[in-house]
Amino acid sequence: MSLKFDLIKTDGNARRGRVHTAHGDFDTPAFMAVGTAATIKALTMDMVRDTGTQVILGNTYHLMMRPGGDLVEKMGGLHKFGGWTGPILTDSGGFQVMSLSNLVKMKEDGVEFTSHIDGGIKHFLRPEDSVHIQHQLDSNITMVLDECLHLPTTRERAEKNVDMVARWAQRSKDAFIDRDGYGIFGIVQGADYPDLREKSAKQLTEIGFDGYAIGGLAVGETQETMFNMIATVTPHLPTDKPRYLMGVGTPLDILGAVERGVDMFDCVMPTRAGRTAQAFTRHGTMNMKNARFRDDESPIDDKCGCPACKLSRAYMHHLIKCNEILGAMLLTQHNLWFYQDLMRDIRTAIENGNFAEFKREFIRNYTGEE
Amino acid sequence: MSLKFDLIKTDGNARRGRVHTAHGDFDTPAFMAVGTAATIKALTMDMVRDTGTQVILGNTYHLMMRPGGDLVEKMGGLHKFGGWTGPILTDSGGFQVMSLSNLVKMKEDGVEFTSHIDGGIKHFLRPEDSVHIQHQLDSNITMVLDECLHLPTTRERAEKNVDMVARWAQRSKDAFIDRDGYGIFGIVQGADYPDLREKSAKQLTEIGFDGYAIGGLAVGETQETMFNMIATVTPHLPTDKPRYLMGVGTPLDILGAVERGVDMFDCVMPTRAGRTAQAFTRHGTMNMKNARFRDDESPIDDKCGCPACKLSRAYMHHLIKCNEILGAMLLTQHNLWFYQDLMRDIRTAIENGNFAEFKREFIRNYTGEE
Repeated sequence: MSLKFDLIKTDGNARRGRVHTAHGDFDTPAFMAVGTAATIKALTMDMVRDTGTQVILGNTYHLMMRPGGDLVEKMGGLHKFGGWTGPILTDSGGFQVMSLSNLVKMKEDGVEFTSHIDGGIKHFLRPEDSVHIQHQLDSNITMVLDECLHLPTTRERAEKNVDMVARWAQRSKDAFIDRDGYGIFGIVQGADYPDLREKSAKQLTEIGFDGYAIGGLAVGETQETMFNMIATVTPHLPTDKPRYLMGVGTPLDILGAVERGVDMFDCVMPTRAGRTAQAFTRHGTMNMKNARFRDDESPIDDKCGCPACKLSRAYMHHLIKCNEILGAMLLTQHNLWFYQDLMRDIRTAIENGNFAEFKREFIRNYTGEE
Repeated sequence: MSLKFDLIKTDGNARRGRVHTAHGDFDTPAFMAVGTAATIKALTMDMVRDTGTQVILGNTYHLMMRPGGDLVEKMGGLHKFGGWTGPILTDSGGFQVMSLSNLVKMKEDGVEFTSHIDGGIKHFLRPEDSVHIQHQLDSNITMVLDECLHLPTTRERAEKNVDMVARWAQRSKDAFIDRDGYGIFGIVQGADYPDLREKSAKQLTEIGFDGYAIGGLAVGETQETMFNMIATVTPHLPTDKPRYLMGVGTPLDILGAVERGVDMFDCVMPTRAGRTAQAFTRHGTMNMKNARFRDDESPIDDKCGCPACKLSRAYMHHLIKCNEILGAMLLTQHNLWFYQDLMRDIRTAIENGNFAEFKREFIRNYTGEE
């Protein structure tokens, strides 16, 4: 394992750092744009870069189905295939297997499932298979295969889960091939049981990884529970490795998680919202379909430097009303731009030692609450 | 009227020129990208510019329906509304009224129709209304309202059409407000009757316009008929004004029309094809859905400099198979890039006095025929 992480500055538990990969560096706290099928939906990679995005996420589940790991490998890996030259993290496929597939059977050896994408052929995914596919994708950061439980769940189920996740994490690490600038992350589970979360963190730290993800959150629990689980886990993770909160979240989720020591995030929220007429702004979200924008000459957010914000809300409204593809393109780019502006502001605030103040001010503007 | 046109060079009947507008110049022969609803579908205006596009076309029919001429005027015109800073030509709305509307009634005063877009409200469009809306759009080149006949048609119908088109052209010109860098074009009709085409050209020349369009072609006739009609019309048009063949066409249509003295073109072909998996190449078109591209590492066209051609056919195939918006985006840009490369090569060939040779070579490559 040889993924270098510099912890540059801390401010309370908030951390400002940098991860070095074979495909360049990225600054933390980082938001990874989700590029499910070797594309950030509705954006060219140039448009993604322009948002300030430094690292993207690929979904192993989708890519193993279409176009397949063998093909991506033959095409020279995911960077070359999709034209993203920067760092790429891939998930293990486990989360999508459980959320998108049919006939899921968990076994000690791996997970059995069928998928509608390839017409229902039976697949079996072991931790070693997931790592192998992520090697084929040439992913800079490989995630171990885990099992993500829905909440609420029983303690018995969660206990079993934590132990199997640890065994799978060890098998994943064993299957991982060391290369300069590439690494593998373990994933802490344990549902909403603090002692199990702690146990999982310790088990994974003992195995030893390039970074540690917190999985199994943002799956139905309250924000308070999520924050509590993060605060439970982070003290048991090494300070010299990045921490990644999977699948999170809203701007306020991110601020709360950074405050509790998280370094990396991914979420479909900004990109998916861009395809459903939702725009993020410093004053909350807006639905651009709303008729009140019909003749609104102001930009979505006058503090934003993205191409959409050189145009008017009226134009965005017009594009949405006409179902124009450009509406999804510009809104997606705007939302990702907004998220990356937020991450940059968070990093600056930590550098300046005023993260708490920045967070308070952001929330005040965003929610309109004092 | 004050739209300046420089005729720089001729090669046989082919012409190399430049049109000067209040929003910059464009070189002819020119291909105008079709921006129906204040957007070139699936492209940002930056992506359009990158293709080499210098002038775009807006559809008055769509814009008068959504968002309406009043709104675009309030927003500062089409350039500002959609973010295209270069020259814009708008059609009169007449062609779409007849092809897309219901209950069309042609009267001497104008055309009556209903549209599904606004739920079937009855509209009446007179030549003066069309010019007024094009003023609201701040279009650099206004087109007169005409009536476009489907082919074949009777001589009697075509005769009536030619005379009414001339009266409407006069009314359009009378309604046009002179401004520096803005102009109005007449439209020659006459179906496939050479003497009527000649008559129409003479009637319009007598009224006097900044440029002359040839309308009512590419509506079902053979390419040979189209070429014959162009060759019939152009000798009767002034040499010091640009000629515009409306709604045309394939690369081979364009080459044949340039050879007969046409300067400007517009067509949905490259952009529409981009949304239906069709790619233009120097060796003809390809359907990127075709399974033979699944593992094809080569670019769509190795002579093309567009972003899609920095990636593989395999990637384009993957995007199309997954219904990814990026597939439409990249293919649309590629196709427009291909068309603009063709226009640039045509202009260079005319400058070098070897247009005939260039045309022969292009056709040989494109069709595979000697």
